[in-house]
Amino acid sequence: MKVGVLGGGQLGRMLALAGYPLGVHVRCLDALTDAPAGALCELVVGDYADAVTLARFAEGVAVITYEFENVPVTTARQLAEFCPVYPPPLALEKAQDRLVEKSFLRELAIPTPPFLAVESRADLDEALTQIGLPAVLKTRRLGYDGKGQAVLRQPQDRETAWASLQGSPLILEGWVNFDRELSLLAVRSTTGEIAFYPLVANEHRDGILRISRAPAPNLTPALQALAEAYAQRILDALQYVGVLAIEFFQVGQMLLANEMAPRVHNSGHWTIEGAVTSQFANHLCAILGLPLGDTAAIGQSVMLNLIGTLPDRVAVLAVPGAHLHLYDKAPRPGRKLGHITLRADEAQTLEARLVQLQKLIDPSAPA
Amino acid sequence: MKVGVLGGGQLGRMLALAGYPLGVHVRCLDALTDAPAGALCELVVGDYADAVTLARFAEGVAVITYEFENVPVTTARQLAEFCPVYPPPLALEKAQDRLVEKSFLRELAIPTPPFLAVESRADLDEALTQIGLPAVLKTRRLGYDGKGQAVLRQPQDRETAWASLQGSPLILEGWVNFDRELSLLAVRSTTGEIAFYPLVANEHRDGILRISRAPAPNLTPALQALAEAYAQRILDALQYVGVLAIEFFQVGQMLLANEMAPRVHNSGHWTIEGAVTSQFANHLCAILGLPLGDTAAIGQSVMLNLIGTLPDRVAVLAVPGAHLHLYDKAPRPGRKLGHITLRADEAQTLEARLVQLQKLIDPSAPA
Repeated sequence: MKVGVLGGGQLGRMLALAGYPLGVHVRCLDALTDAPAGALCELVVGDYADAVTLARFAEGVAVITYEFENVPVTTARQLAEFCPVYPPPLALEKAQDRLVEKSFLRELAIPTPPFLAVESRADLDEALTQIGLPAVLKTRRLGYDGKGQAVLRQPQDRETAWASLQGSPLILEGWVNFDRELSLLAVRSTTGEIAFYPLVANEHRDGILRISRAPAPNLTPALQALAEAYAQRILDALQYVGVLAIEFFQVGQMLLANEMAPRVHNSGHWTIEGAVTSQFANHLCAILGLPLGDTAAIGQSVMLNLIGTLPDRVAVLAVPGAHLHLYDKAPRPGRKLGHITLRADEAQTLEARLVQLQKLIDPSAPA
Repeated sequence: MKVGVLGGGQLGRMLALAGYPLGVHVRCLDALTDAPAGALCELVVGDYADAVTLARFAEGVAVITYEFENVPVTTARQLAEFCPVYPPPLALEKAQDRLVEKSFLRELAIPTPPFLAVESRADLDEALTQIGLPAVLKTRRLGYDGKGQAVLRQPQDRETAWASLQGSPLILEGWVNFDRELSLLAVRSTTGEIAFYPLVANEHRDGILRISRAPAPNLTPALQALAEAYAQRILDALQYVGVLAIEFFQVGQMLLANEMAPRVHNSGHWTIEGAVTSQFANHLCAILGLPLGDTAAIGQSVMLNLIGTLPDRVAVLAVPGAHLHLYDKAPRPGRKLGHITLRADEAQTLEARLVQLQKLIDPSAPA
């Protein structure tokens, strides 16, 4: 049984690795001949906009999915003529544009930070009057890992922010003084079966995810239930199929939805060792209509991204409970080259080993 | 970093799957173009006896290993001219011949069932006089999954046993009225670092492993220590590198070594989900001189082999805690097509689900 995956990056690679034991063979489509998934599964190299490439990619696959949310919606709809495409292209539409996304969340009565569309300099002034400072000006499309964003702290920041981002459709969002960032991974099968992983606490630096702790420390059943209730509304509204990641700001006992990703997600990598069933296996089960695996955590995990450079492999593997995941990517500043999942039965054990590991990963990082 | 694996069966496939996250790429050598590992790693198709094939296989690999113990020792020694071959070819020599193997164990003062070499019909009579009935007549070489064996219960059984096996060098072993069969997986790195997995209890039917329970129920520290002490002698004597499997008969608090396999082993498949580090990852770490991962069990596991036919995938995945592993092999009677690892935190939970799973796997099996 063959599954097509748009994109051959590390997410496609980990989907392929999860597929083999289930008897599922992944075929990736990527523009790059050295896409990370290509080492271990079939790789079609070509352009998402090319009809011949798409037909070749879709030939003989049972279902098509994607590993990043900036797949052109037209591509997804075109492929839907060959076979089912999951998550549904509607989810792509909602997730690709921050204004559409936040409006969609608001329609579902899911709290979000305040936001307003900005199409002109006059819009920006008006939005700032309504939302106040601090605020974040963002491009509506194609932003990731903190790119396409400018933080406005003082009135004069609007000049540089506008100068750097004008020309694209924008959104101004109110700054949220959050306690922490959490993410929820939800998964829904073609059969309607739904499962949720425990909430994860995420730490970013320079706009890039650095660390996820799973389950989130001090997670209460009430907070988990709140996140699941919000996720359920999204799953229902989109008749969603596959893994869906939702990022929240936690403020007291309140959750504000920040964004969603209709795919397996970096904040879910811990599930490979830290949960009974990985997000990758469950995404495949969901889109193929197979029963979902148990999403319970096994002990405590911390996932650490390896950004830009790789630590010494021997030193990492010498840390008890550390699981190394390399993506076969050439080092480059800011690039996600791999991750480590550190798992232990007890939170205390974990913290001591985490300190040890962090020294290896980023010796220059402040303590 | 590339590792060569002689053999491209399910063991080679699972080594390859374990390698990618560690940045290790596996290249398998197999006589069959449709070897199970070929779906997901480089496969050289050719003959182990062909020097040109061996040179092509060995080109650019850092280390060579094997996934079955009937690799010709001459092949292993030839390959050792290109790069290190682990486990050491000496381990192959000891494991390929039951008489050599049992004599080696006896030299190390590791208890075994009584045994005698049988080269002629007269030898057989003499051996039966010494060992008594019941006994098992076995070919010294190339036996696996119960093939090349005949059980002698009554004096007249010697005729049919001799008729069916004569022509090959044989060994007569005393029948052991064992309480259960256990196996120990040991692993030793090029650095000398050693680790042991907990003992596993194995159930065979028709000479083929059906079920492994890990850790073995009612495992005492004393029994584990005894098995580890025996294994340590073998590791030391062979200056062993890699995973080594040793099968024991348990009789009271005594362990009799039955055989050993110088490779990853079917009774260690549970380690993928049921241990902190899988036998496949640890075998690669051992032969590459990387730190070994934690061999502790996580909860309780049962591994069930899928022999000859495959159960319904949907029904299997619906059992909580069941992890399916398919090998992409065409069904054939007696063929290992895959396995399932059932894992749970509590033994009681596990047993209830095991009953459910066994009904799916072999509906005709007696309860």
